[in-house]
Amino acid sequence: MAMIDLNCDLGESFGAYTIGMDDRVIPLISSCNIACGFHASDPEVMLKTVNMAVEAGIGIGAHPGYPDLMGFGRRNMSVSPSAAGAYITYQLGALYAFAKSAGAKIRHVKPHGALYNMAGKDYALALAIARAVKAFDPDLILMGLSGSESIRAAQDIGLRTANEVFADRAYMPDGSLMPRSMEGSVIHDEKEAIRRVIRMVKEHRITACDGSEIEIHPDSVCVHGDNVKALDFVLEIRSTLEAEGIKIAPLSEFV
Amino acid sequence: MAMIDLNCDLGESFGAYTIGMDDRVIPLISSCNIACGFHASDPEVMLKTVNMAVEAGIGIGAHPGYPDLMGFGRRNMSVSPSAAGAYITYQLGALYAFAKSAGAKIRHVKPHGALYNMAGKDYALALAIARAVKAFDPDLILMGLSGSESIRAAQDIGLRTANEVFADRAYMPDGSLMPRSMEGSVIHDEKEAIRRVIRMVKEHRITACDGSEIEIHPDSVCVHGDNVKALDFVLEIRSTLEAEGIKIAPLSEFV
Amino acid sequence: MAMIDLNCDLGESFGAYTIGMDDRVIPLISSCNIACGFHASDPEVMLKTVNMAVEAGIGIGAHPGYPDLMGFGRRNMSVSPSAAGAYITYQLGALYAFAKSAGAKIRHVKPHGALYNMAGKDYALALAIARAVKAFDPDLILMGLSGSESIRAAQDIGLRTANEVFADRAYMPDGSLMPRSMEGSVIHDEKEAIRRVIRMVKEHRITACDGSEIEIHPDSVCVHGDNVKALDFVLEIRSTLEAEGIKIAPLSEFV
Amino acid sequence: MAMIDLNCDLGESFGAYTIGMDDRVIPLISSCNIACGFHASDPEVMLKTVNMAVEAGIGIGAHPGYPDLMGFGRRNMSVSPSAAGAYITYQLGALYAFAKSAGAKIRHVKPHGALYNMAGKDYALALAIARAVKAFDPDLILMGLSGSESIRAAQDIGLRTANEVFADRAYMPDGSLMPRSMEGSVIHDEKEAIRRVIRMVKEHRITACDGSEIEIHPDSVCVHGDNVKALDFVLEIRSTLEAEGIKIAPLSEFV
Repeated sequence: MAMIDLNCDLGESFGAYTIGMDDRVIPLISSCNIACGFHASDPEVMLKTVNMAVEAGIGIGAHPGYPDLMGFGRRNMSVSPSAAGAYITYQLGALYAFAKSAGAKIRHVKPHGALYNMAGKDYALALAIARAVKAFDPDLILMGLSGSESIRAAQDIGLRTANEVFADRAYMPDGSLMPRSMEGSVIHDEKEAIRRVIRMVKEHRITACDGSEIEIHPDSVCVHGDNVKALDFVLEIRSTLEAEGIKIAPLSEFV
Repeated sequence: MAMIDLNCDLGESFGAYTIGMDDRVIPLISSCNIACGFHASDPEVMLKTVNMAVEAGIGIGAHPGYPDLMGFGRRNMSVSPSAAGAYITYQLGALYAFAKSAGAKIRHVKPHGALYNMAGKDYALALAIARAVKAFDPDLILMGLSGSESIRAAQDIGLRTANEVFADRAYMPDGSLMPRSMEGSVIHDEKEAIRRVIRMVKEHRITACDGSEIEIHPDSVCVHGDNVKALDFVLEIRSTLEAEGIKIAPLSEFV
Repeated sequence: MAMIDLNCDLGESFGAYTIGMDDRVIPLISSCNIACGFHASDPEVMLKTVNMAVEAGIGIGAHPGYPDLMGFGRRNMSVSPSAAGAYITYQLGALYAFAKSAGAKIRHVKPHGALYNMAGKDYALALAIARAVKAFDPDLILMGLSGSESIRAAQDIGLRTANEVFADRAYMPDGSLMPRSMEGSVIHDEKEAIRRVIRMVKEHRITACDGSEIEIHPDSVCVHGDNVKALDFVLEIRSTLEAEGIKIAPLSEFV
Repeated sequence: MAMIDLNCDLGESFGAYTIGMDDRVIPLISSCNIACGFHASDPEVMLKTVNMAVEAGIGIGAHPGYPDLMGFGRRNMSVSPSAAGAYITYQLGALYAFAKSAGAKIRHVKPHGALYNMAGKDYALALAIARAVKAFDPDLILMGLSGSESIRAAQDIGLRTANEVFADRAYMPDGSLMPRSMEGSVIHDEKEAIRRVIRMVKEHRITACDGSEIEIHPDSVCVHGDNVKALDFVLEIRSTLEAEGIKIAPLSEFV
C-alpha cells in the first residue's frame, strides 16, 4: 500500500505574537516540524506545541533555523558549517527536552527557511547539519528537499532521509524546484497540484517544467496551517489521497 | 573521608565576546556549570566548553538563566513559575545535546544569577524549576544555596540536591547568606575564608554574623575563573583542602 | 471647550508577526504611542507606522519599553534607573529618526507595560526616565498614569505632562488605579465606563471604589485597537464624547 | 596642508562583555565610529562612549550594522535594501539621541562589517543606505571604502563622502581592496604600511598589487584599538604622519 506523510511547520508563535492555526491543522497531518526558538518560538510555545503534538499522536520533528527572529529565518546568512552544526545541536536538544519531559520522541529534523534552502544547495553546509543530527541521535530522519544536497549529505553519512515534495511547485528537469523568480514556478490550480502529488506517490513520476518526465520518490508533502485557505487545501489533499488508497502516515512508519 | 566539590561557571563567552579564563580554571575544579545561551553563551561556545569539560573529566552541569543577555541574567525578572520551568527545560535540553553528542552526561543543574537568587527565596519558583529538572531527568542533582527554598523544593519532590556554599560570604543565624547590602557580608581575608570552608566541610559548622554557631552541610564550593586573582584563590583553597585530607571530587561521587 | 486626547499603542508588530489593527484604529484616535523595538516592533514596522501616523495627522509619541521581546515588555525587570534612562534615550532617538525622516515630530513619550507601571510607583525610576526625555528634547510631553510618580517626577524637573486615564478601570480613593488583582478593578459595563470618562473630562471628578469623590484632570484616554470589540468601544467613546461637546484633539493642542 | 582623518570603531562592548581599549585609543584618533546596538553595544555603552568622545573632542560617527549580535555583524545577510535602510535610520537615530543629549553632533556614518562590505559591492544596497542617511540629515558624511559602490551611491544623491583607506591592505589595479583570500592581501611590514599611507595622502598614489600606479584620494585611515599592538601601530602612524607635515583632523574640518 502506498504511503505518504503530510508535514506542517508548527509552534511558530512567539511571546505575545501568534502565527499559525496549530490546533486546526494538527488533526489533518501526520508529522509536524516544531520551531526551536531561533527563527521563531519560545520555551513556553514549545512546551505547549509538543504537548499538543503528543496528544494528537503525530510524528514530532525539530525545525531548527537561523538565529534571525526579525527575519523569521528566511534570510540567507553566511554562517559557517561548523556554526550551523552547533545551531542544529542546540535547537535539537532544546526540543528533545520538551519531548522527553512529555514522554515522547523526536523522529525527524527539518531545517527551516533559509537554512533549508541553503543546505539544499551547499553540500558542506548540508553535511555539517547531517553530522550534528547523527552525533546527537543516529536514529533521526533528516527531511530535506527531494533531490537536494541535504538528502545526499545525510545519505552519505548513513542517516535515514525523507524526501519532501511540494504540491504547488513546478520542478526542473533535474528534479530541483523551479525557482520562485521564474514564471510558472507556482501551480495555482489546486486540483492540478493534488493530481501531481497523487502521481508522485503512486507512479514516482512528475512532469517537469520542460515537459519531460522525471522520477521522484516522495516521503512527505509539505502543507500549511496559517490561514483558512491553506487548511481547506490540506483537507482536500488528504481526502483525495485517501480516496486513491494512499495511506497517510508519519515517517517513522515507513522510512 | 571528607569530600567536597569545587564548582565554577564556565562557557559564558558570547560570539566575539570573551568572559572567563576557562582553560585555566578547568584543571582546578571538579564540576562546572555551563551557560546555556540565555544569560550568556551561544551554540559554538557551548560546543567548545562541553568538549573541554569532557576532556578534563570534570562533572558537567547546566547553568540556565533568564533570557537577559544584556543584563547577563543578573536582573530580577517577574517571570511566572511555569515560564521559568519552560526556560529550564529548554536550556537543559540544549546543553544535553552537546553533552550527548560528545558522549558525556549532565550531572547537575545550577540556575544562574537572578534566577538562582529568586528561586532561593521563592518556593513556587523553586518548585517549578525542580519539576522541570525532574521531568527531564530524575537522576539530575539540583545545586542551590545551602538552606534555600531551591533545596527545599527539590527535596520535596525527591530530587537529589547539592548544597552550595560561598567561601567569601558571611552567613545569617538562619543559615542564609548575609545580603551584600549589609556591612561585613563579604569576607575579604582569604585565609579566613578558606578556614571557614575547611570547618564547614570537616565540622559542618560555621560561625554566623551574630557569633552563633550554625550547622551546615556543604556539597560544593563556588569558585571563579574570570581573573588571575580568582584563579590564585582557587589554587590556594584547593591545596589547603587537600592538605587537610579533604578530597575534591565531582558531586556524582558523593551526593 | 473641554478637550481630551485619545491615545493608542501602535506599531507593535515584529518581523513576520502582526499585532494590532493599526490601520483601523488610526482614524479614531488623536495620538499614538509607537513601539520602539525593545518590547515590540522592528525598524521596518516603525518606518511603516510612522508614515501611517504622519499621513493621518495624529500626534506621534514614543512608546519605549524594557528589552524583553519574549515577554512583550510586560514583566518587571530590576533595571537600574541609569540603565532605564539610557533605554529611553536609545528608543526615543530611534523613533525620532523615522519621524524626522518623514518630516514629522515626536510630541510625547509614554513608557510601555512594566516600565510604565514600575515608573508609576518608583520615583527614582520615574526621575531617570523624565531626565532622559528632557535631555533629549525639553519640549516633549511625558504621558503617565494620572497621579503617579511618573507625573510627579516629570513635573519636578519642569517637563510638561499628560495625565492618562483608563475608561474601564476603577480608582482608589488616592487617585491610583485599583490593582487588577482586586475584585471590581475592571468596569465591564461599557456605557458606565464612557459615562465615567465624560465626567472626568467635564467635571474633573470620578467616584472611587469606596464611593468617595476624587478630583482628576485627564489629558488622554487610553484605547486599544487589537480586536474588533476594542475598535467598537473606541467608536462609541468617540461619538459620545463628541455628542457631549468634548473635542478630541492631540496633546500638543492643549497641554 | 595635507590633512587626513584617523578613524576607529568604538563602543563595541555589550552588557557584561568588553571589547576594545576605548579609553586608550581615543587620544590617538580624530574620528570614531560608535556601534549602535545591532551588531554590538547597548544603550549604557552608547551613553558612556558618546560622553567619552565628546570629552575628547573627536568627530562622532554612527557605526550601524546588521542585527546579528551573535556574529558581531560580520556575516553576510540577505537583507533587502529597504529593510537595510530602515536599520540605518533606526541606529542612526539611537546614536543621535545620545549625541544630542550630550550637546554634540553626529558627523558621519560608517556601516559595520558585513553591511560595509556588501554595500561596497551592491549599488542598490548602498543607495538604500545613502538615502536613509540623507533623509535623516543631509549634512552627514557617508564613510565608505575608497572606490566602492557605497561612495558612488552616496555621491549620486548628493551626500558628502569620505574615502576610507586601509594601511595594511593591498589594492587591486581598479582601486578595490585585494580580497583577504588572495596571497599578499595583507601588508605585514608596518613601516611599509605607513609609507603607503603617507604616499596616498601626499601624492594621491598607491602601487597596486600588479605594480601599476593608481590614483587614490584618502580622507580617513581605519585604525584599531582592541589590543596593545594595534595601539602601538596607531601611535606610530600618527607620529609619522605628523613628522611628514600631515595634519590629523576630523572629517568635518576638510570634507
